[in-house]
Amino acid sequence: MSTIPGLKTVGLLGGGVIGGGWAARFMLNGVDVKLYDPDPQAPRKVGEVLDNARRALHKLVASPLPAEGTLTFVDTPEEAATGVQFVQESAPERLDLKQMLLQRASTAAGPEVVFGSSTSGLLPTDMQRGMTHPERLVVGHPFNPVYLLPLVEVVGGEQTSTAALGEAAAIYESLGMKPVRLEHEIDGFVADRLMEALWREALWLINDGIATAEEIDDCVRFGAGLRWSFMGTFMTYRIAGGEQGMRHFMAQFGPALKWPWTKLMDVPELTEELLDTIVSQSDEQARGRTIRELERHRDDSLVAVMQGLRATHNGAGLVLDKYERQLFARAGAHHATVDPTGPLRLYETTVPVEWVDYNGHMNDSRFFQVTSEAGDRLMRYIGVDEEYLTHSSYYTVESHMNFGAQAKSGDRLYATVQLINHDPKRLHHFTVIHRADDDSVVATAEHLMLHVDTAAGKSSPAAPALQAKLDELWSHHSTLPKPVHAGRFVGQPRA
Amino acid sequence: MSTIPGLKTVGLLGGGVIGGGWAARFMLNGVDVKLYDPDPQAPRKVGEVLDNARRALHKLVASPLPAEGTLTFVDTPEEAATGVQFVQESAPERLDLKQMLLQRASTAAGPEVVFGSSTSGLLPTDMQRGMTHPERLVVGHPFNPVYLLPLVEVVGGEQTSTAALGEAAAIYESLGMKPVRLEHEIDGFVADRLMEALWREALWLINDGIATAEEIDDCVRFGAGLRWSFMGTFMTYRIAGGEQGMRHFMAQFGPALKWPWTKLMDVPELTEELLDTIVSQSDEQARGRTIRELERHRDDSLVAVMQGLRATHNGAGLVLDKYERQLFARAGAHHATVDPTGPLRLYETTVPVEWVDYNGHMNDSRFFQVTSEAGDRLMRYIGVDEEYLTHSSYYTVESHMNFGAQAKSGDRLYATVQLINHDPKRLHHFTVIHRADDDSVVATAEHLMLHVDTAAGKSSPAAPALQAKLDELWSHHSTLPKPVHAGRFVGQPRA
Repeated sequence: MSTIPGLKTVGLLGGGVIGGGWAARFMLNGVDVKLYDPDPQAPRKVGEVLDNARRALHKLVASPLPAEGTLTFVDTPEEAATGVQFVQESAPERLDLKQMLLQRASTAAGPEVVFGSSTSGLLPTDMQRGMTHPERLVVGHPFNPVYLLPLVEVVGGEQTSTAALGEAAAIYESLGMKPVRLEHEIDGFVADRLMEALWREALWLINDGIATAEEIDDCVRFGAGLRWSFMGTFMTYRIAGGEQGMRHFMAQFGPALKWPWTKLMDVPELTEELLDTIVSQSDEQARGRTIRELERHRDDSLVAVMQGLRATHNGAGLVLDKYERQLFARAGAHHATVDPTGPLRLYETTVPVEWVDYNGHMNDSRFFQVTSEAGDRLMRYIGVDEEYLTHSSYYTVESHMNFGAQAKSGDRLYATVQLINHDPKRLHHFTVIHRADDDSVVATAEHLMLHVDTAAGKSSPAAPALQAKLDELWSHHSTLPKPVHAGRFVGQPRA
Repeated sequence: MSTIPGLKTVGLLGGGVIGGGWAARFMLNGVDVKLYDPDPQAPRKVGEVLDNARRALHKLVASPLPAEGTLTFVDTPEEAATGVQFVQESAPERLDLKQMLLQRASTAAGPEVVFGSSTSGLLPTDMQRGMTHPERLVVGHPFNPVYLLPLVEVVGGEQTSTAALGEAAAIYESLGMKPVRLEHEIDGFVADRLMEALWREALWLINDGIATAEEIDDCVRFGAGLRWSFMGTFMTYRIAGGEQGMRHFMAQFGPALKWPWTKLMDVPELTEELLDTIVSQSDEQARGRTIRELERHRDDSLVAVMQGLRATHNGAGLVLDKYERQLFARAGAHHATVDPTGPLRLYETTVPVEWVDYNGHMNDSRFFQVTSEAGDRLMRYIGVDEEYLTHSSYYTVESHMNFGAQAKSGDRLYATVQLINHDPKRLHHFTVIHRADDDSVVATAEHLMLHVDTAAGKSSPAAPALQAKLDELWSHHSTLPKPVHAGRFVGQPRA
């Protein structure tokens, strides 16, 4: 069963990078695909895109995906359009070729079947000429990789019906995409015009020997590109304008448009009328949010994007990672100063907004994350370092948590770790998570960890230096009172 | 103690959005700041930037930040440059004003003190004229918000020394930033030229009535902007070129540069020499990675960015959220079909790469996340919905986990949930996490949850409909054998 009510089978014309991406989007949403592409390499190419897409989409969504649709290669455009409920064309960017494919396929399709075209910039009015039922042709211009990027520009030609535009947009939306409806067809539509402008400027910078391809890319991905992942140029400049908004920004930076800052100097006249249009459209886009609200939303999103990129070791995430290592190295000197006579204060953090769930509190799994981080710090404290991890590590085998109080976004927490027991193979410890404001206890956790030889995949004794460090710590912690919650089972009556 | 060896105090000239951002970057890295700005509003404005920055930076980094540096407002540029180890100028973009400030401050600073200028595009050769020791002036052009975005364009003028460039870059790097060194000064440098090109095209699109500010922004943030957060235009096109790389891309899309797809038509001649330069620079940037490797890195990063934006309810994250709700709604119909006579199979997921830790396995806290998700599904199953959550919920009070086997990135897991006990206020259940391939057990979790009146913040009995659903489930689950690990305490000998 597909995610789209009534949509069981679609026909695809073209199976390159874009056509293959559409095949993946539809199939992973449970829709069967009939694909026409005369290239004998098409099955291999589509298969490669599908491999990537399966891998990526299962990572992307937490929700269960439906059973995958089937893929059938057919020999003619007519076959691709027979017995299907929707057709998407993704042939090379030649008007005559697209016209021929659409014409042939439209003779075979039922009259109610809507056609989408992936063209990057040809006009739908030109493409629909010669089709049977030309009113059903809609441009649905996606972006690579089609199976991940949400944007589809949706625009009709002179003959296109409103119904066809609505149906195509609904289908794209049900695939997890974001259709952006454009009122007027224009060569290159909107997105490619913006990309082309940047690309032309980039080519000039290389041509003139100002910067290399990598430097130019770095100037995007470490700066404006991070913002562009969630807000475009108008919202960016609205925020730059500060409390006085867009009109202030235009007054301040409008004159800069006349400065020789690009090779591409043709600029529209900033008439009062154009200014009014920009200002009112910007107001509408802001939907009453103050600059302070917009700034914080921007900052939260920048944080989330950079943390995401840290996890994938890419771009700004690598810069963040390096910076954190630098801060940790300073804190490492700090480890030597931790007082070993009481529970070790090894970890602190501020609750990020991402940790808060539908109850408005820090999610229970995030408490486990905090105690897991504290356990990591204990390992570092006793001498587990990058080199040690190449052959051995401690694995958690059993954990117990008690949740005592809530934590909210922005709360500052710290964790202390007490040794409960240890032998050469086992490390039994107890973490208390405190609120930093008043040292109150919000949660506790008890963990049993096993020392393992990671290559052999079996338990093994810890290195002598680690055991010595644990013995030393035990000489202090064995004298501490056992935590009240240590040794509890779930549901045990409170003492 | 600051994060930068030897850097204790810096002088700032200008305290607007950019100068305030620098103040925040330095102070949060433990550096004291002396700030000159004649605007009487400067303390308020800098204070607002600092509020934002503290909030954001503590969320961004997991590592401990040093104790915050102090902020002192001074009355002259000379005072700002006295007794400091570095000066950053961020005055409005007027050459005469910047020259005056740099001239005055440089007479007061020690001869070894390097000066950075935040100018967006004025030439350092012009700005350094008239300075005492002009060789120490470096452009260090940051991006808003300065306390979060890593990029700083670093470029010198005719008189600038290599040593000054190196020192400025080292200071920016120690603040967690990414200095990009440009060999040649040019009006607008690189990043602003690229942004200006896009901005001019955007203004034309509004001027010509093709699209609104919001539509234009949407065409960025739901498409190319997501890619631009970690790769620029050259890497994007290299991947688009597929296995044959950049030369193939240029051969295929070079002609499109002549198409009327932008208002900004001036394009460099694509000579063989320019093509060779682009191709070799692109090869260098790829560092031997295959297209497949680049594609997967891109996909992982897109997934991470979109998941990050889902957490902050922004742009593509909202599209993803809506898509997942859609998939869940379908799965909701699926809930009705779950077999209640055995443990309920309520949740499945594929292990994303972000869940894997330094041991190469799914981190223990992520197992807790899976069982927490399964608990959520149990709540939904018994009838907790959005409306119910407005007044009541279940909170976890105690949990116990046993870890039996490892899971790796890409492993498909599912969780089953068994009711252990229940009364009007308490819900005691047991989750088993299985590997989908062979149904083997990877971890188990036992949870005690308490029904709470969320407004009162106190335990309360569940609604009758929920209790009825639990009774019905209990009529089946009370007959199931108790899981072996239920009721365990940490370290209890195995049966």
